[in-house]
Amino acid sequence: MAHVTPPSLVALDWGTSNLRASLLDDGGAVLATRSAAAGVMAVQERRFAETLMSLCGDWLSAHPTCACIASGMVGSRQGWVEAPYVACPAGLDEAAAQLVRVAFGDGERHTLHIVPGLRCMGRDGQVDVMRGEETQLWGAGLPAGSCCVLPGTHSKWAWLGDGGQVLGFQTHMTGELYALLTQYSILGRLMDLSAAAPPSAPVHFDDGVRLGLQQHAHLLHTLFAARTAGLMGQRTAAELPHFLSGLLVGAEVASALNGSSGRRDAPAAAAVTLLGDGALCDRYARALALAGRAVQRAPLDATTRGQWRVAMAAGLTTLTR
Amino acid sequence: MAHVTPPSLVALDWGTSNLRASLLDDGGAVLATRSAAAGVMAVQERRFAETLMSLCGDWLSAHPTCACIASGMVGSRQGWVEAPYVACPAGLDEAAAQLVRVAFGDGERHTLHIVPGLRCMGRDGQVDVMRGEETQLWGAGLPAGSCCVLPGTHSKWAWLGDGGQVLGFQTHMTGELYALLTQYSILGRLMDLSAAAPPSAPVHFDDGVRLGLQQHAHLLHTLFAARTAGLMGQRTAAELPHFLSGLLVGAEVASALNGSSGRRDAPAAAAVTLLGDGALCDRYARALALAGRAVQRAPLDATTRGQWRVAMAAGLTTLTR
Repeated sequence: MAHVTPPSLVALDWGTSNLRASLLDDGGAVLATRSAAAGVMAVQERRFAETLMSLCGDWLSAHPTCACIASGMVGSRQGWVEAPYVACPAGLDEAAAQLVRVAFGDGERHTLHIVPGLRCMGRDGQVDVMRGEETQLWGAGLPAGSCCVLPGTHSKWAWLGDGGQVLGFQTHMTGELYALLTQYSILGRLMDLSAAAPPSAPVHFDDGVRLGLQQHAHLLHTLFAARTAGLMGQRTAAELPHFLSGLLVGAEVASALNGSSGRRDAPAAAAVTLLGDGALCDRYARALALAGRAVQRAPLDATTRGQWRVAMAAGLTTLTR
Repeated sequence: MAHVTPPSLVALDWGTSNLRASLLDDGGAVLATRSAAAGVMAVQERRFAETLMSLCGDWLSAHPTCACIASGMVGSRQGWVEAPYVACPAGLDEAAAQLVRVAFGDGERHTLHIVPGLRCMGRDGQVDVMRGEETQLWGAGLPAGSCCVLPGTHSKWAWLGDGGQVLGFQTHMTGELYALLTQYSILGRLMDLSAAAPPSAPVHFDDGVRLGLQQHAHLLHTLFAARTAGLMGQRTAAELPHFLSGLLVGAEVASALNGSSGRRDAPAAAAVTLLGDGALCDRYARALALAGRAVQRAPLDATTRGQWRVAMAAGLTTLTR
């Protein structure tokens, strides 16, 4: 008979679009996972408790001593309960001390612990925020001095200190801007987005990266090159989206690495760690290589690992209670 | 009895959305104007000739020796006949030598002369183009050494040489980006665009300008400040659009004035001339003042003046034929 470890934590990655649940044993190993298209924006009439019970009610009935933790947009103003942002520098201990609790289920017998997001003040004097990525960063187990990029609609660059503390970070609206420009702007009119990536796609992406790295201080102007390159017949309708993507990612990389709005105490970041999966990280790896930076990849299960670590730090799991 | 001057030119400003026609006498003075929402995008089935005759047919019947000239998107690939871009540096003589002719009207008895657009090569190695603005620049009668800004969906910065030659120029996608970000991005979700400008609007616009001037090299990141300023309660829903507008215009101004993608031979441009009318030029004037530049305004009838000057240079009008 196999060794049976008792479930001790239900860990929820509850974002804008999706709800992903993992059942962890008392050593943090994943026993089972489930997901639903039940992100914060899909939950009607604030029926968060019903949504959670519908996905995980049987787990909680079978294992009533399991703790519950969640990270992501569920803690935003549009989420279940707002979990105020914790100021950087912040690590596991700060997050664990400021979990926000909400009771749910029959007789409100269960408690969900929501991980707070982080805020920091950039060198430009502007506040920046993240919610969900902080938990991924803590789960990735990166050493002090790491610079970590989480590509996405709003990509995040984070600089880490001792014990995984997040010293500071920057949001870049790169992914959203690419979507807006291809879908709604005059640049998109010369593009064929339905075409499969042509064999020349990496060449045009790299051309865009080089231009973006060099001209990131002139983005409002240089973006227009993604139109004139089409008007002049220099790039085809299927190549232009790759050129634009490279231009934007290159501009982001140059801005973040050379950034006067970056952390005063940011390390030189000779190496950059990519956190995320799929084709988008591959694009960032190409761009970082063109910028002369070594690239590492973080483990893919960082979100669940981070939730486990916060739960441990807060003493939520059966082992530590 | 008043002195009657004979009409000698029908001058058409034929853009994307509108068709504006002026009837000029043999000294270039405006005798009459008309317009219709009959821009290039509104003309069905390429019925350009019918559209023109419907607006100006009576002028041409009454004054059969009148010449016809047009500038703007009517010379684009989506227009009536494509007028290839003329390479900078380019002035009246280059444009006059490369007018594109198209016959129209009963028995094709009339000839429309289409002013070509301009292209130039930026320091970033990318081609830039304009179509219509070149004629405005020539009509504004600016001295050599002028730096001129034409704010708009795609604002243009142009540097002028002797005799009004356009030495080079830059397009900035500022206006289009503002529209995309307010209408479709996450930044717009915290904004109230329907509200009248609050009394504090100029303060928030100026704050945005200062941030954009300082952080133009980090635009993909700094744009996010237009979200966090709302999240943190620092600016209201009605103030945020003005902050974002300032941020974008400030970034454009800093990029163009400090631009490594600018003209190699661009003058220092202590003074900048604004060409255009209305509230948008007022915003640019504020931003340029915050950037420490003196601002001048060009005359408002620059388009018609420019069309007249090109026609004169080409020998189209009765006086010179």
